[in-house]
Amino acid sequence: MTPTLPSIAPPSIADVRAAADRLRGRIVMTPLLENSLLNKRMGGRVLLKLETLQHTGSFKYRGALNRLLQLSPEQRRAGVVAFSSGNHAQGVASAAQALGIPAIILMPSDAPAIKVTNTKGYGAEVRHFDRWKESREAIAAGIARERGAVLVPPYDDADIIAGQGTAGLELCAQAHALGAVPDSVVVCCSGGGLVAGIALAVEAESPATKVYTAEPAGFDDHAQSLKAGKRVTLKPGATSICDALLAPSPGEITFAINRTRLAGGLVVTDDEVLDAIAYAFRNLKLVIEPGGAVPLAAILSGKLAAAGRTTVVVCSGGNVDPATFKTALDRVTA
Amino acid sequence: MTPTLPSIAPPSIADVRAAADRLRGRIVMTPLLENSLLNKRMGGRVLLKLETLQHTGSFKYRGALNRLLQLSPEQRRAGVVAFSSGNHAQGVASAAQALGIPAIILMPSDAPAIKVTNTKGYGAEVRHFDRWKESREAIAAGIARERGAVLVPPYDDADIIAGQGTAGLELCAQAHALGAVPDSVVVCCSGGGLVAGIALAVEAESPATKVYTAEPAGFDDHAQSLKAGKRVTLKPGATSICDALLAPSPGEITFAINRTRLAGGLVVTDDEVLDAIAYAFRNLKLVIEPGGAVPLAAILSGKLAAAGRTTVVVCSGGNVDPATFKTALDRVTA
Repeated sequence: MTPTLPSIAPPSIADVRAAADRLRGRIVMTPLLENSLLNKRMGGRVLLKLETLQHTGSFKYRGALNRLLQLSPEQRRAGVVAFSSGNHAQGVASAAQALGIPAIILMPSDAPAIKVTNTKGYGAEVRHFDRWKESREAIAAGIARERGAVLVPPYDDADIIAGQGTAGLELCAQAHALGAVPDSVVVCCSGGGLVAGIALAVEAESPATKVYTAEPAGFDDHAQSLKAGKRVTLKPGATSICDALLAPSPGEITFAINRTRLAGGLVVTDDEVLDAIAYAFRNLKLVIEPGGAVPLAAILSGKLAAAGRTTVVVCSGGNVDPATFKTALDRVTA
Repeated sequence: MTPTLPSIAPPSIADVRAAADRLRGRIVMTPLLENSLLNKRMGGRVLLKLETLQHTGSFKYRGALNRLLQLSPEQRRAGVVAFSSGNHAQGVASAAQALGIPAIILMPSDAPAIKVTNTKGYGAEVRHFDRWKESREAIAAGIARERGAVLVPPYDDADIIAGQGTAGLELCAQAHALGAVPDSVVVCCSGGGLVAGIALAVEAESPATKVYTAEPAGFDDHAQSLKAGKRVTLKPGATSICDALLAPSPGEITFAINRTRLAGGLVVTDDEVLDAIAYAFRNLKLVIEPGGAVPLAAILSGKLAAAGRTTVVVCSGGNVDPATFKTALDRVTA
């Protein structure tokens, strides 16, 4: 069996369009929602791209399915392996299940229980690792060697980025249908796959629109890297409730795309994230997980001016434990 | 000033279509969402019509705006009055605010705090009444006489029914676009305005589709009335967490429509409703209020067979207090 070498070339807009053709009818075309209370509060037009309503509760299904659909019959039989704090795990597991491919998922032992249960629910075999002591990359590479399984990386892969970018093509088309030209698109960011894919789509479809990352404080490697013009790796030790956004540095392929295409990086506190989750419950009737609420937190807390403008806010995932959600509910005032 | 006599003729499908033209661009065309986990659980295709994402967090905005858009300039100046446990209150208040019309809303003193605050937030004057001791109809009629204000009834009105029916036109078109012909549509039911409007739309657009009401136990006046072939009024005294669905009998105009057009009435317990709210949080990433979750509860609890069929479930509202939502969250298992 030929070992599968990951592609290190960044995807192009043609790859994003090809992914959209490949995924059509297999994914949810998630709504671009407008809410009068949010518009009023921000003094501008805010359009929410609801990837919370994607299969598996996050955008990760797009990239995973785009990658898996391109495996050879031989590769499908050997199966796939992935590591993830949770949303990529569910995306790969569910995409693998949809295509009848065996999947092993490595998850940190402190991943939210709901994400672990769901991953198993999609038929994958889950193995745990210690986020601070073990190298998930090394364990995954070992499994890939043993079984001939294909490693599906969470973000630094051309097919993954192209798959996530389909959300960007959709939001441009949906904004256009509403008669809106977005001034800005705000996207949460860990390794940078979603924002890279969206940046490619927005560059092609809505070139006047600026794309921003949004990250939790302590994990603002993209904000710092964009300022420095090169990949910055953060020192370990920070913590955040945004379990989906804990990557210490931008990906290599993702940053090759993002370095020249992004307008800047926004940073929010956990406190602002909990307020945003509470706001979404109270006024938008949406369940958003901490990592997924970071872009909403960025505009609600005024990190990006939205008054008099049209801003697209990507709500990227909704896989939150009840305990965390209750903490946010305690901030809801009648 | 000529007193406004409410129309007692039921609306026709032409009125529903006219309402759709009137409301276009002023309301959210709410998504019809499909979720792979829910499909798998039910063994069939389930399409969720998300009126939780409508302006004001419920379908009530549709009917209210359709009514208010037809007031004369003189009537607009005199203002409107309405009574409601909450969602109609918010719908009328917000529609009145959008059109610059003064609004007085009568709300029961035990209405959820979040609904009261929101109604005031939309600029309406709120007056409270005792649900068990006072007649909201009499108080509202008094205010209407005093001020010359137009009473906007919650359901027994041709324009209100036609406005709610626009959700039915949308769901038929959206199902069609997905290549689906619904076998059934399940709609929550208090006075019966939403289901009546949807029944008119479905009869015209998808005549093979059956429409069912879903009601909380103790408030199953539609289920009983449909069986009896005439309007049944329940004895007072029952309680339910479904604060939006406490009407003791079908409306006169709504039942004139519903009597011959509905396939039957489904009834669920509060326990089943809490389970449905928990399911929606965990798997669908949606915030649904108790009354709005009754149709979902009906299919999850097997009150209507969904296996091998296509079922549209209307999620009608999301205005739930944090305390009630926490009770449901306690049922979520990882």
